Amino acid sequence: MSVDTRPGTTVRRTIWRVDRGAVAVRQDTLATEEPLEIRLILEGGEVVPVSVTMRTPGHDFELAAGFLFTEGIVAGREAIERMEYCVGPVAEQQYNSIGVLLRPGVHVDRSRLERHFYTTSSCGVCGKASLDAVRTHVPHWGLTPDEPRVAPETIVRLPDRLRAAQGVFDRTGGLHASGLFMADGTLVSIREDVGRHNALDKLIGERLMAGALPLPESVVALSRRASFELVQKAAMAGVPVLVAIGAPSSLAADAADEFGITLVGFARGERFNVYTHPQRVLGGEVP
Amino acid sequence: MSVDTRPGTTVRRTIWRVDRGAVAVRQDTLATEEPLEIRLILEGGEVVPVSVTMRTPGHDFELAAGFLFTEGIVAGREAIERMEYCVGPVAEQQYNSIGVLLRPGVHVDRSRLERHFYTTSSCGVCGKASLDAVRTHVPHWGLTPDEPRVAPETIVRLPDRLRAAQGVFDRTGGLHASGLFMADGTLVSIREDVGRHNALDKLIGERLMAGALPLPESVVALSRRASFELVQKAAMAGVPVLVAIGAPSSLAADAADEFGITLVGFARGERFNVYTHPQRVLGGEVP
Repeated sequence: MSVDTRPGTTVRRTIWRVDRGAVAVRQDTLATEEPLEIRLILEGGEVVPVSVTMRTPGHDFELAAGFLFTEGIVAGREAIERMEYCVGPVAEQQYNSIGVLLRPGVHVDRSRLERHFYTTSSCGVCGKASLDAVRTHVPHWGLTPDEPRVAPETIVRLPDRLRAAQGVFDRTGGLHASGLFMADGTLVSIREDVGRHNALDKLIGERLMAGALPLPESVVALSRRASFELVQKAAMAGVPVLVAIGAPSSLAADAADEFGITLVGFARGERFNVYTHPQRVLGGEVP
Repeated sequence: MSVDTRPGTTVRRTIWRVDRGAVAVRQDTLATEEPLEIRLILEGGEVVPVSVTMRTPGHDFELAAGFLFTEGIVAGREAIERMEYCVGPVAEQQYNSIGVLLRPGVHVDRSRLERHFYTTSSCGVCGKASLDAVRTHVPHWGLTPDEPRVAPETIVRLPDRLRAAQGVFDRTGGLHASGLFMADGTLVSIREDVGRHNALDKLIGERLMAGALPLPESVVALSRRASFELVQKAAMAGVPVLVAIGAPSSLAADAADEFGITLVGFARGERFNVYTHPQRVLGGEVP
């Protein structure tokens, strides 16, 4: 008899809820957070640990593939022979470690396995140096400067559509979501995770493994803020329009500028801000 | 003539604001995001790069000290001789790299410099293994199970007090905050950052360097969600009560259970949830 020890997306827990001084014991649903180890298995069987990320279980192979691609460690899905959970001595752990077997002859740039790849050889690091280092690794997708056209009326509908599609959010309130939309606002896919990088890596990893990158007609919506690393990941996937419901950071805007991405932030109600490359949203009416 | 190239906490940027279809050009304030490299300088002058984190400039030395301590790389402030910005060939980069000079004779556990220290030697990793690995590194602060007593009326006031104290938030909407409070709700200090780990590391780093750890009478409030790593950092600093305005993850609750921390989540309006060790908040009336 085998027991499926795969961790779920949520867990139930007894909590104490306090409301205006009154205490009630109840069952609550929490988003599962568990580590996922990603290991490369090179030609000849050498195993190279790459990363441990705290993630919400589910779409783990997409997460692994997306992470390896957006971090510039593998160049495309052709590099990946197959992915599998490691079977270790402790059964309950097997779903927290993934081995990614590379195709024979695939070269891995080991310098990319250093997570700190934007460290320059000089003493300091700066945003500009980061951008330079990253830019050289972003595929030349050749984004078209004014395509796709995404109407403002489409932008304002994305937050509600993202929220409506979030399966776990309403139960736990603890998950980040990344949604892939067509330029007319049609939802293509959505991924959730306790880690916002993971939610986007899952989304991109799915498209990568489907052979569907780049995504020149797409809009990606993020449930929270936009950071440098999220913009970088979008650039790796050839995403032309990125819509954050929260605020972008300074370096997120700089990176979007650099990579030719239209960055929208604070998409709430009937309002939003466009930070970079506004022509895709505002067309010829850019003031 | 020297020019101060220190990056600011915010930057100004021209954006396009769209409101019900009307477009206006305006100046907007964004939270600065820049990399900070942390390097250990060992006895004999060996330089060991430890981490690059994307952070909001400000309180950088506190961030470096807090990070090194909460990650278990240095055991206390006694280990640190001094910290200084690196002066590199590019002037504008010097404030993005900190060298931490250790005292002569201080031993550094190099295995802790591997960020993936919760990877077990077996194939898999799991939450339990993580907890085991981390627990052995948490100082034995000896938290008293029912102290401090924090009244529910105090808990419900923390979110507003944290928000009121946030200097940058209202201008950018993009920063995480960590606030240190006394058990009666008095604010001690607050730190902000684009990275939530950084905000807590800055808060703890300041107390570390003041020789004020552990913090047995304190409450730490977090402006967003509580993850495993945030609970772990609080445990390292001897914080008995952690209040998150957002949701906790499953492993955050497990870790708080394990480390004897009272974890509160969803502190909004007159309501909040207690996930672990409720006696500090609910006293003898725990149902």
